[in-house]
Amino acid sequence: MTLPKITRASLERHLPILQWTKTYDRDTLTSDMVAAVIVTIMLIPQSLAYALLAGLPAEMGLYASILPLVAYAIFGTSRALAVGPVAVVSLMTAAAVGNMALQGTAEYAAAAITLAFISGVILLVMGVFRLGFLANFLSHPVIAGFITASGVLIATSQLKHIFGIDAHGHNLVQLIGSLLENQHLTNPITLFLGLTTTAFLFWVRKGLKPLLLGTGMKPRMADILAKAGPVAAVAVTTIAVWLLGLGDKGVKIVGEVPMGLPPLTAPSFSPEIWSQLFISGLLISIIGFVESVSVAQTLAAKKRQRIVPDQELVGLGASNIASALTGGYPVTGGFARSVVNFDAGAETPAAGAFTAVGILLAALLLTPLLYFLPKATLAATIIVAVLSLVDFSILSRTWSYSKVDFTAVAATIFLTLGFGVEMGVSVGVILSIGLFLYKTSRPHVAEVGLVPGTQHFRNIKRHDVETHPEVVSLRIDESLYFANARFLEDYVYNRIACDEPIRHVVLMCSAVNEIDMSALESLEAINERLEAVDIKLHLSEVKGPVMDRLKRSHFLDEMTGEVFLSQYDAVSALTKEKTAA
Amino acid sequence: MTLPKITRASLERHLPILQWTKTYDRDTLTSDMVAAVIVTIMLIPQSLAYALLAGLPAEMGLYASILPLVAYAIFGTSRALAVGPVAVVSLMTAAAVGNMALQGTAEYAAAAITLAFISGVILLVMGVFRLGFLANFLSHPVIAGFITASGVLIATSQLKHIFGIDAHGHNLVQLIGSLLENQHLTNPITLFLGLTTTAFLFWVRKGLKPLLLGTGMKPRMADILAKAGPVAAVAVTTIAVWLLGLGDKGVKIVGEVPMGLPPLTAPSFSPEIWSQLFISGLLISIIGFVESVSVAQTLAAKKRQRIVPDQELVGLGASNIASALTGGYPVTGGFARSVVNFDAGAETPAAGAFTAVGILLAALLLTPLLYFLPKATLAATIIVAVLSLVDFSILSRTWSYSKVDFTAVAATIFLTLGFGVEMGVSVGVILSIGLFLYKTSRPHVAEVGLVPGTQHFRNIKRHDVETHPEVVSLRIDESLYFANARFLEDYVYNRIACDEPIRHVVLMCSAVNEIDMSALESLEAINERLEAVDIKLHLSEVKGPVMDRLKRSHFLDEMTGEVFLSQYDAVSALTKEKTAA
Repeated sequence: MTLPKITRASLERHLPILQWTKTYDRDTLTSDMVAAVIVTIMLIPQSLAYALLAGLPAEMGLYASILPLVAYAIFGTSRALAVGPVAVVSLMTAAAVGNMALQGTAEYAAAAITLAFISGVILLVMGVFRLGFLANFLSHPVIAGFITASGVLIATSQLKHIFGIDAHGHNLVQLIGSLLENQHLTNPITLFLGLTTTAFLFWVRKGLKPLLLGTGMKPRMADILAKAGPVAAVAVTTIAVWLLGLGDKGVKIVGEVPMGLPPLTAPSFSPEIWSQLFISGLLISIIGFVESVSVAQTLAAKKRQRIVPDQELVGLGASNIASALTGGYPVTGGFARSVVNFDAGAETPAAGAFTAVGILLAALLLTPLLYFLPKATLAATIIVAVLSLVDFSILSRTWSYSKVDFTAVAATIFLTLGFGVEMGVSVGVILSIGLFLYKTSRPHVAEVGLVPGTQHFRNIKRHDVETHPEVVSLRIDESLYFANARFLEDYVYNRIACDEPIRHVVLMCSAVNEIDMSALESLEAINERLEAVDIKLHLSEVKGPVMDRLKRSHFLDEMTGEVFLSQYDAVSALTKEKTAA
Repeated sequence: MTLPKITRASLERHLPILQWTKTYDRDTLTSDMVAAVIVTIMLIPQSLAYALLAGLPAEMGLYASILPLVAYAIFGTSRALAVGPVAVVSLMTAAAVGNMALQGTAEYAAAAITLAFISGVILLVMGVFRLGFLANFLSHPVIAGFITASGVLIATSQLKHIFGIDAHGHNLVQLIGSLLENQHLTNPITLFLGLTTTAFLFWVRKGLKPLLLGTGMKPRMADILAKAGPVAAVAVTTIAVWLLGLGDKGVKIVGEVPMGLPPLTAPSFSPEIWSQLFISGLLISIIGFVESVSVAQTLAAKKRQRIVPDQELVGLGASNIASALTGGYPVTGGFARSVVNFDAGAETPAAGAFTAVGILLAALLLTPLLYFLPKATLAATIIVAVLSLVDFSILSRTWSYSKVDFTAVAATIFLTLGFGVEMGVSVGVILSIGLFLYKTSRPHVAEVGLVPGTQHFRNIKRHDVETHPEVVSLRIDESLYFANARFLEDYVYNRIACDEPIRHVVLMCSAVNEIDMSALESLEAINERLEAVDIKLHLSEVKGPVMDRLKRSHFLDEMTGEVFLSQYDAVSALTKEKTAA
């Protein structure tokens, strides 16, 4: 039985796996397998480390890296995105769940599972209702500021493992306070191990690649080998702890990690827990989606492929639901990991599915080897990874370009560091929208005149232009809507309040992309008020869509003046009229 | 001792009373006194009725009409605004306080007093921080829809007094259900009294004025006499109830109203009560401010006077605080009342202070006369007053003009009627801002060509224009900011995806009033991507403020093409280049 063609097409849209499997061949298989092996090696220490960052048992990191990858391979549209636990989402999970239960308790893990489920449902619903555009309301600088501040928070939160002490907190003040309070308990062996590993990983990142290139290795291979540094660090420090019996000397180790398949788990459906976690779930979904989509788009562009953001929501939603059902916690597409996947030659989402098999094998076979893995090593891999995300230059770049953007970034960074991730990103978004609205509510209005020898009109304050005392031409540099309707009225009234012999006011509408009902009423008020003092109101360069709408109102009948195609026509006609009179 | 001039000027700005008292003379005094007498006569039944609407004892309406008027006379800038209890704010008070206590209890009255205080503090703080512009974010259609729906709610809520039954509720469904449930208890005498009074008041409003004009009376006098109808209704029905002993026959009367000065009262400072009332107080403040300022501005414009919105916030804030300290409830500037005040010749805010004296005399002397006043009469005055505010034509006007405005109005009306005033106005505001943001996130982009014989460029789909296959000119009809940065990228990539021999893309920026950091990054991405396929990116008609900012970034150095003063220059240069080559 063959499906009718239209159904096949719509099925393919909703199940992208049906598209790429059609042309899947042996070459693609080989590429995908190679990429999967490399990503698996990179993902094992990462998934353990990020689970630790989220305050969860290490195995939950592994579980979150198995079924979610398969779900994404079925529903996702990016060919190179590598899904799994990531740093920022792990930190946000710790912040959200930390309000509800103590780390290490069963409630804490259960809440993380429920959070993954809530986040999955939100992403899925957003995908079905095509709400991907909502992510556009996160401005680039706010995201950059948020990622930078989160990186600082994450690195600071991991210092406790480097020092071998206890410390807690969801913002910089709490974390540093807690570290200082307990620093006298520092374990010297842990500290030595932590610092050495951190230094080694930094060297791997900066110094190893040039070294390998020096031996004549291909750049791509050198790059991938350098990314395997954490695996070497894990192996060496685990063996050191085992051989030297450092676990008995106060070095904290991962301990027993259960061996076997991921467990089947069910999220809680308690309305109370949902209402407590909903906002966090929403923030995690949006941040995760934005991070994931921007990586996916960058990688797709390199191969002239396209991703479908609304379908990406479905893919990530399915991943998170899969995570919740198999003992995982919130996941999304990771930056470093996806780049490695892409560079290693992944051709289709099947690479993700093969990675899942790799992690599954690790969960089945390798967990006993992780017993002596020191937490300090995992902390070092996190610190080195997140510090590459920290980039305060966004502050100086926005400062020189736009104070509005700077304000939003500075607030986001300050609030994230001072009050935690949720406060930081929420206020960042609200502030950037609020500042945009505030700006549009006080539009720039320029009085314009003719640039001699052209038909072009520019600001009289900036250019040497011709004007006529009887005709005032005002170019309004903003759409007219409720928030600036009153401003326009005030501006025009102030402009005509002087004693000049003004007979015509021309509103040049080249930058007016919309006139809403409130603004229309203000235009009517302006028209009436100008009529009372014997001044005619004209419009020029009104755009098609705006004109269509004005024609449906009575305003054009009531307006004392005319609508001109261009500002040049307007001034020519109005000054000619004078000459004729 | 004379104050230094600068202090005097700044004092006058903050205490407008110092301005108008300088030129106060006997003529002004007479005008103000006459206006005050007329407004007092109108305000007595209104203030009692609105207290009833708010679910409060009748005397609180009187108290809210004494000191608040004096406070406004000192701090307010409008010369004609008449402050006191108004219908919509009374309804909102009932909705807010009804959640906290039962009508008729001391807690209910205390909560209303606290609400007035909270609202006063909010207004004062907004005034001090010059946040009056926030009111601009209430669009005209949302306000119109809200007032209309509130009018329907208020009229419905008063039907219980006309029928002489009990009914409660904060939305139309509850109110009608409650009325239907109790309609078998209808008191026929009350119903007769209520219907007769309502019919009389409607006739006074529609029929009396033409009749008086027929007798040769001056229009303004006829207008004012017609406004005194409620006083006549109060007098006649009170006497009827007293003479016929209708109070014993089930007609509900106002009963004992305490005689004497307004009491000194103190608001609650319990954090719990404040947190419960804060949002309501904020909504009442903003709605009250918007209503008040639009009346004040309309009346000021008629006499070429100006009001200062931020100082109005201070005036209204002081009024509400005064109300809270003297047994009143939230007040604002009333529409009908201010128009009467203006028409009756009020010249300065002193008219308000004289009105306060009039109401004070009423509270001191007339309250025993109100004992037999039937509640049905007060309900009739409310119904007739608010039905004049009801105007569903805003639905049809917005439907034909703008579906976005229509959506916001329809939602506001529906939610106000179905879920109460607070839900209605909150969602209305959020929706109108949300829809505006949504629109700006998907801007109109027009491909333009030269209108033959001019230097003017218009949409190729709407006008007969000249184009060149190698040069694509795109006019972007929106400021470029974070919410539409990605949209622009997608648009440009789609446009160049066809097989045409495109060599230049010109972005015509006449409607671009801002390019924020996110959009700048998108322009950089577009430039890079176009460069890869050997297409040059140019800008034209970039406005001064936008250009200033671009010059501070590296973008202009990286851009493959040029910035042209006008679109005409751009196309001339780019097509000439081709001819030369």
